Amino acid sequence: MPRVLMTVAYDGTAFQGWQIQANARTVQSEIESALSKICGGELVRIHGSGRTDSGVHARGQCFHFDAPRPDFTPETWMRALNGNLPFDVRILDARGVADDFHARFDVCAKEYRYFLRTHRIMLPELRHVRVLESRPLDLARMREACDLLVGTHDFTAFSAERGDGSSTDPVRTLTTLELETLPEDTLMIRAVAPGFLYKMVRQITGALLRVGRGELSLSRIEDLLSHPIRTGDTPTAPAHGLFLWRVRYPKDIT
Amino acid sequence: MPRVLMTVAYDGTAFQGWQIQANARTVQSEIESALSKICGGELVRIHGSGRTDSGVHARGQCFHFDAPRPDFTPETWMRALNGNLPFDVRILDARGVADDFHARFDVCAKEYRYFLRTHRIMLPELRHVRVLESRPLDLARMREACDLLVGTHDFTAFSAERGDGSSTDPVRTLTTLELETLPEDTLMIRAVAPGFLYKMVRQITGALLRVGRGELSLSRIEDLLSHPIRTGDTPTAPAHGLFLWRVRYPKDIT
Repeated sequence: MPRVLMTVAYDGTAFQGWQIQANARTVQSEIESALSKICGGELVRIHGSGRTDSGVHARGQCFHFDAPRPDFTPETWMRALNGNLPFDVRILDARGVADDFHARFDVCAKEYRYFLRTHRIMLPELRHVRVLESRPLDLARMREACDLLVGTHDFTAFSAERGDGSSTDPVRTLTTLELETLPEDTLMIRAVAPGFLYKMVRQITGALLRVGRGELSLSRIEDLLSHPIRTGDTPTAPAHGLFLWRVRYPKDIT
Repeated sequence: MPRVLMTVAYDGTAFQGWQIQANARTVQSEIESALSKICGGELVRIHGSGRTDSGVHARGQCFHFDAPRPDFTPETWMRALNGNLPFDVRILDARGVADDFHARFDVCAKEYRYFLRTHRIMLPELRHVRVLESRPLDLARMREACDLLVGTHDFTAFSAERGDGSSTDPVRTLTTLELETLPEDTLMIRAVAPGFLYKMVRQITGALLRVGRGELSLSRIEDLLSHPIRTGDTPTAPAHGLFLWRVRYPKDIT
């Protein structure tokens, strides 16, 4: 069966995250239901680049599946899915890939973006995709903290336990961590790495905000990197400011 | 009682418009309920700059009211309201005005903005604040149509009947009508006038889109201005692309 790689965007507000679970509305389950409907009831399993948590959005999540109808082109699958999915999920791209391609194992890098509104008052139509930060922020200090965090470190102090007993290597390589000020009082935090720990972007965001408010020193950030234990210094920022923005694969695949 | 002028933003998605009605969730009724709660049950009537239709959003709707508690500053009213309003309505500004100021009668100009996504596929998190336009648009031709519409005309052909038997002078003066292309495949139509007819911005948008697609000629636009009768040439664009962006008052007031 031909393997298809898709890029999907979703508004995470009404989802309990990406991964399929019993009795929960998840993005994976909506996509698998739509595929099953298109295929006359047959179960079609999809394989995401990784999970996103409850409430987190995506502009460029990726997944692959083995297409049970060889007469369909990737374009046909995309149209069929968008015709059968709810409006808070949209397939943005579809392409054929090799039979041994895997949306999770072949990831080169992921980019996350966290969006803050730096103002006293939230704009109502942005309330599900921005987090309000009303206190003045020292952006220069926050940028210094970004420079400390970029690179290869044990990020245990900037992550949470999954709670399922799983354990992974806590050493990760942040290739990019930067702040960008955007129009309409928007502050965006951009993080790129080959892989992230559980809740790592949201805890880095929480720590950066504490640095910006003067609640956390740069030397404390250095401590947390050199003595990697979990503390209360890195609060997890709310899910609804976060977007999985892009998943990168090797050039010869995509 | 001191008169207070407020600027309010709302996400129109879950409202049946601005104006208070029996058995309907409207912005005016939410604000009056919140004021009444703050004032221990007393009815406080507010006076908007005008109505907005069901589903239309606002970034800068304005209203005034006579403040029954003279100990409150405008700032206090704003905080108290934001503490008692649902999150799809936010007061952005409050100031004291003269006793004879009126939010409707003293309007100098209103600015509306209509937002389109010019792409094949909608982005899920923007689905309530953009309207999808998938066909290629001739922007140069649309700008020529804008130039024809700017100025003082009988805009009957670009308006709808209110259905309540009311009639108003159909001559209006559009001081600005322009297109702006924004990042992420966004096309914005900006319209400014001292006053608009019922559904006028949405019908102008509908007509401009037909011009852009090559379905309506510039000479037909001229015809509709010189022979002002309602036809099928100006479909009403959907409410959820429209924002009441700003209401302007004389400089000595605000």
